[in-house]
Amino acid sequence: MNKTSIETEFSANQEHFLKEWSELLRFKSISTDPSYVQECQCCANWLVDHLEQIGMESALWLTPSKATVFAEFTAPVSKDKVPTVLFYGHYDVQPVDPVELWTSDPFDPQVRDGRLYARGAQDNKGQAFYFIKAVESAIKAGTLRCNLKIVLEGEEECGSEGFSAKLDEWSSKLQADVLMVCDTGTVKAGTGAITMGLRGIAHLTVALKGPNKDLHSGVHGGVVRNPAAEISRLLASLYNPDGSIAVAGYYDGCTAIDASDRALANAFPLSMTEYAAMVGTLPEGGEQAFTPWERRGFRPTIEINGVHSGYGGPGGKTIIPATAFAKISTRLVAGQDPQHCLSLIRKHLESNTPRGVELEITEESVGGPALRLSSKTDIVRCAAKVLKEVCEVDPVYMWEGASIPVVSSLAQVSGAAPLLVGFGLEEDNIHAPNESFAIDQFKQGYLYVSLMLSELSR
Amino acid sequence: MNKTSIETEFSANQEHFLKEWSELLRFKSISTDPSYVQECQCCANWLVDHLEQIGMESALWLTPSKATVFAEFTAPVSKDKVPTVLFYGHYDVQPVDPVELWTSDPFDPQVRDGRLYARGAQDNKGQAFYFIKAVESAIKAGTLRCNLKIVLEGEEECGSEGFSAKLDEWSSKLQADVLMVCDTGTVKAGTGAITMGLRGIAHLTVALKGPNKDLHSGVHGGVVRNPAAEISRLLASLYNPDGSIAVAGYYDGCTAIDASDRALANAFPLSMTEYAAMVGTLPEGGEQAFTPWERRGFRPTIEINGVHSGYGGPGGKTIIPATAFAKISTRLVAGQDPQHCLSLIRKHLESNTPRGVELEITEESVGGPALRLSSKTDIVRCAAKVLKEVCEVDPVYMWEGASIPVVSSLAQVSGAAPLLVGFGLEEDNIHAPNESFAIDQFKQGYLYVSLMLSELSR
Repeated sequence: MNKTSIETEFSANQEHFLKEWSELLRFKSISTDPSYVQECQCCANWLVDHLEQIGMESALWLTPSKATVFAEFTAPVSKDKVPTVLFYGHYDVQPVDPVELWTSDPFDPQVRDGRLYARGAQDNKGQAFYFIKAVESAIKAGTLRCNLKIVLEGEEECGSEGFSAKLDEWSSKLQADVLMVCDTGTVKAGTGAITMGLRGIAHLTVALKGPNKDLHSGVHGGVVRNPAAEISRLLASLYNPDGSIAVAGYYDGCTAIDASDRALANAFPLSMTEYAAMVGTLPEGGEQAFTPWERRGFRPTIEINGVHSGYGGPGGKTIIPATAFAKISTRLVAGQDPQHCLSLIRKHLESNTPRGVELEITEESVGGPALRLSSKTDIVRCAAKVLKEVCEVDPVYMWEGASIPVVSSLAQVSGAAPLLVGFGLEEDNIHAPNESFAIDQFKQGYLYVSLMLSELSR
Repeated sequence: MNKTSIETEFSANQEHFLKEWSELLRFKSISTDPSYVQECQCCANWLVDHLEQIGMESALWLTPSKATVFAEFTAPVSKDKVPTVLFYGHYDVQPVDPVELWTSDPFDPQVRDGRLYARGAQDNKGQAFYFIKAVESAIKAGTLRCNLKIVLEGEEECGSEGFSAKLDEWSSKLQADVLMVCDTGTVKAGTGAITMGLRGIAHLTVALKGPNKDLHSGVHGGVVRNPAAEISRLLASLYNPDGSIAVAGYYDGCTAIDASDRALANAFPLSMTEYAAMVGTLPEGGEQAFTPWERRGFRPTIEINGVHSGYGGPGGKTIIPATAFAKISTRLVAGQDPQHCLSLIRKHLESNTPRGVELEITEESVGGPALRLSSKTDIVRCAAKVLKEVCEVDPVYMWEGASIPVVSSLAQVSGAAPLLVGFGLEEDNIHAPNESFAIDQFKQGYLYVSLMLSELSR
């Protein structure tokens, strides 16, 4: 199939697609709120039926939490080895509060100015649905000649715990060559974007205990160690003056940055001034030896998410606080093991805690490792070619700083090369009131998936 | 008068003293709570009348807040120059909450096991009253041959603002040679103690502003400066690795420590193990080049009273906090000007704030300078001699770490050499439920004051 015929097919079915997409959006599949358990189940059942209808073998896979929708298409027998594509998406959505800020009911989808408004219109029901519609068209046309597996989980918005817990057990059924995910965004309408990396994540909470109660800072000041001062020293000790991480061995094993990927990352179309206008401060943090986009995409960071000790009200209160605590998270890059990095941080904190205060790690959790793609791999070259065909401009390559731990886990378990391409835009208001998705972006997604499946079916 | 005759006089009047002391304690002169304004006024009036009755010329001095009681005794004409003693005390008391923990009504004084129980029984009505009773006895006996001025303020427990505001205006009336204060404690019953120093105090609140809102720590981690990490670095920068203060010029002008005073301070009768058992941690803070009691008495300290930034709830929240703030106070020693020290801290913080975050000093206040006595001064030698006579053991010298800014101010304004001797004990529960004062300690105070006035009348 070529682009023109796919566009024709889309136009012929647009009304029909919109109707079904709206049906899917009517389910109040809010995973974080227990009162919507049944809506989540109904939504999953609808998807199983729907995937059966378009010609896939479907099933509901149970997890300790929300069920996962699984569907499979086996390519017609061929003398050539055909690739297997695994698609990951999620059917659960964010809560709708504050609901009074919505122009129309979040679960009564409405089209206004070429956009479909509803909770999940984009994230991720909308982006999953253009994938499904592209598959439907390809099966109907008899052009789908690769194997295809679709998994749609039901709790991405609340941590994917049940899904993650089952991955090892499902491993043999999930084996694939390519892992396609359409849960990301692009920089502007009409330009494609490939998410080339995600950072790994782990976090911990540390407490420092000093005296057995808040002490008078006059009577005891200069005599005992002050936990508020000591936590400051301890957190400060995580960094070198040049902004790099001072934890011994932290950078060991970090995958080197490919020169051409570095150039692509630095070509990210947002100037430092635009960035500063957006967040209110210049990008002056982190390792000064790297550019902001290199730091975000290719370098680990340790971030203090919170630090609390002692008095916080108006005026003064002359105490030496009894305790202090801090929330620390780290973003990791390819080549770093989250568990190992946590243990390096723990060791650093332990060896930098002086006598007179006591360190306690009160919480510790590993999200998952990083993902990193190279612009030189076949799958990225293929996606870039397709995106250029769809958008008629070169795509943007985005090495993201954020983490989607479940994608990293799924890539590991399935053995598939991840490919993250999405058509979301800032204006879609995901996780916020009045979420919507432009029908044009939905169509671009449909074109991209159709052409990718076509390429993979060669 | 000698010790024996003073003891006889006390015994003869004990019942009478107790009755009057109880009368004074019945006034609910809680200065912090506006509902007790009238009780405070009645208490002040009672004191003015009482001081008239014992033979002093008394008056109520108005301030912008609670009134100050002033009384004066002019020594009989003599061919020798006689010294002028200024006594400072306060008639206001702490609130009584939680009142349900009191065994008897806090304002219905009761004697149990040789102690008088009531709010203010010790702090400071009790200790001021043995001073007044000793004065009464001396006037009655015709042995008081020095000039005496008594000021009793009404808002020591809530910051002495009104009193402090009037000091300059009252300056000429307050001129004296010795400033006696009986608002401190001793180490154990039967041992006298001279408070040889108080530290000065100043404090400030600083805020660090980074991004215009909390940012996603994945998307922006390593790109922008993190205010929680930067406040940690900034606070840590206040200290050198050896525990000394790293603020440039901070120790300039600090009065040197006299070798014999240093020895007396180190003789403070509390072992490090006893100290650790009391506060729950070893005295490992501050400048390692000094002993704990030297650090407390002779060295300034900068203490972090609170630091707050970002998330503090359960689990993780992957944000870069938009802001951070810290409450910082400093205790100062003789030779340091609080205003100058604040400006040194401000300068240090400003010059250590990196680009990408913005420093704001949101609150700043000066308490007052330090007080330091030397064991070699006449007044201290005299007090030591008297305390040895009263207690029959050598007194303890305590260079305190805490601050009573009003005493420093009063010493400055009056030009008088301060002398802080009190008979309070930990078991008196000042500021807590079931405050009490042992009649034996009250008597020791009476003996000490009587003998001091006798010495000063020579």
